[in-house]
Amino acid sequence: MTRINEDDFDVVTAAMVVIGDEILSGRTRDTNAGHLASIMTAIGIDLREVRFVSDDQDAIIEAVNQLRERNTYVFTSGGIGPTHDDITADAISAAFGLPCDHDTQALKILGEHYKARGIEFTDARKRMARMPEGAHHIDNPISKAPGFVIGNVHVMAGVPSIFQAMLDNVVHTLRTGRKLLSKSVLSDFGEGTIGAPLGDVQKNHPDTIIGSYPRYEDGSFSTELVVRSANEPAIDKALDDIKIMLSELQNTQT
Amino acid sequence: MTRINEDDFDVVTAAMVVIGDEILSGRTRDTNAGHLASIMTAIGIDLREVRFVSDDQDAIIEAVNQLRERNTYVFTSGGIGPTHDDITADAISAAFGLPCDHDTQALKILGEHYKARGIEFTDARKRMARMPEGAHHIDNPISKAPGFVIGNVHVMAGVPSIFQAMLDNVVHTLRTGRKLLSKSVLSDFGEGTIGAPLGDVQKNHPDTIIGSYPRYEDGSFSTELVVRSANEPAIDKALDDIKIMLSELQNTQT
Repeated sequence: MTRINEDDFDVVTAAMVVIGDEILSGRTRDTNAGHLASIMTAIGIDLREVRFVSDDQDAIIEAVNQLRERNTYVFTSGGIGPTHDDITADAISAAFGLPCDHDTQALKILGEHYKARGIEFTDARKRMARMPEGAHHIDNPISKAPGFVIGNVHVMAGVPSIFQAMLDNVVHTLRTGRKLLSKSVLSDFGEGTIGAPLGDVQKNHPDTIIGSYPRYEDGSFSTELVVRSANEPAIDKALDDIKIMLSELQNTQT
Repeated sequence: MTRINEDDFDVVTAAMVVIGDEILSGRTRDTNAGHLASIMTAIGIDLREVRFVSDDQDAIIEAVNQLRERNTYVFTSGGIGPTHDDITADAISAAFGLPCDHDTQALKILGEHYKARGIEFTDARKRMARMPEGAHHIDNPISKAPGFVIGNVHVMAGVPSIFQAMLDNVVHTLRTGRKLLSKSVLSDFGEGTIGAPLGDVQKNHPDTIIGSYPRYEDGSFSTELVVRSANEPAIDKALDDIKIMLSELQNTQT
């Protein structure tokens, strides 16, 4: 896909690290990446890369350090629960070279939460209050154990309902880019038919990003053609040329 | 999650690169990674990492080259169709430093396919026959345009039904590791309750991998405890200790 010249935009980028052996084993299907992708697009942030890594400290550190260097924001999901395989807080602390300790405020929130429910505040549960020194909380309205932000890295839960609630709580803190608008048209032609002429339309409209997304249903292909740009008139001009292209193809085939 | 000493196993590893702007924008939800994860687990291959990257040659090259160096196999999905944004064949060729040309046999297969259907074999469709010099085909029973294998990298389609069919066609060619067996038990306790004692069970059974997977439904947490090992008696011993642990917790709470 052709990229719009980034000089024309206030480009804000993001990357995600999905943490958990259960994702890589196929036991659990990740849905957080798709959710984050939709939210980032909606607020004008360009999600550049997603990595699924195992519950392995070196793997988490490598992914987080590579991605936080080259993106405005990094989001992680998973590994912040109370069991021995929840090592995200330690790994993120190590990635930043910071000590990982029990956070006083998080201990207080969790202590009150369990007390109100008549549940013992075990050492395992206290693990959920650990975070890198200097981190800020991300509120968790569902099960209270907070996520945290350190530098440009947002550490959130893997349980989808909690991940989504935490993301809702950080979205307003993010710097957002200029929003890409998009319009689309559905074509009965497969990509094989429209590929070459669509490439020509893209060349004639360099200020737009034209994508084609094939569908295969009931034994035949169709294609959705999507035009993106921050500039709505530019989208409309490209879309006009696509419609002309499609009607010419229609005439050729009939 | 504690890892079993790899010296005890014939460890075969895999990584995946999911290619496509439509995945990172949230327009399309990836399902191929989860499918690959399940198949790899079933045949005893350890899926170590998955990366979603955009339709950008540098991003594809970086991911493929990092992952093929350190894994037995790499699988890619997406970007092998006939349009201008399908750049996977070029990017993979560049990653290997090989020319990317029309493959004679692929041109023949596609030519016959389109001829039989009375469809013009356009230049765009011919793009789907391009692959790195020396690559082997992966048959595509659905729409004929083949995937390909070069080195340890398997390049497959993004459309899920075609990805799955191609994967079925390569699975028999893969070296597989010793299979991890698994057994699980469901617990009414949340992770906060079982975290510490489960960590003790893990310490006492180093030849197993014990994972806990929290569920949050209807306002309460439950946890699935999974024990994995290549050695079934080892699984059963760990599972016995987990059941003792759960019944002790039950007695404590009642």
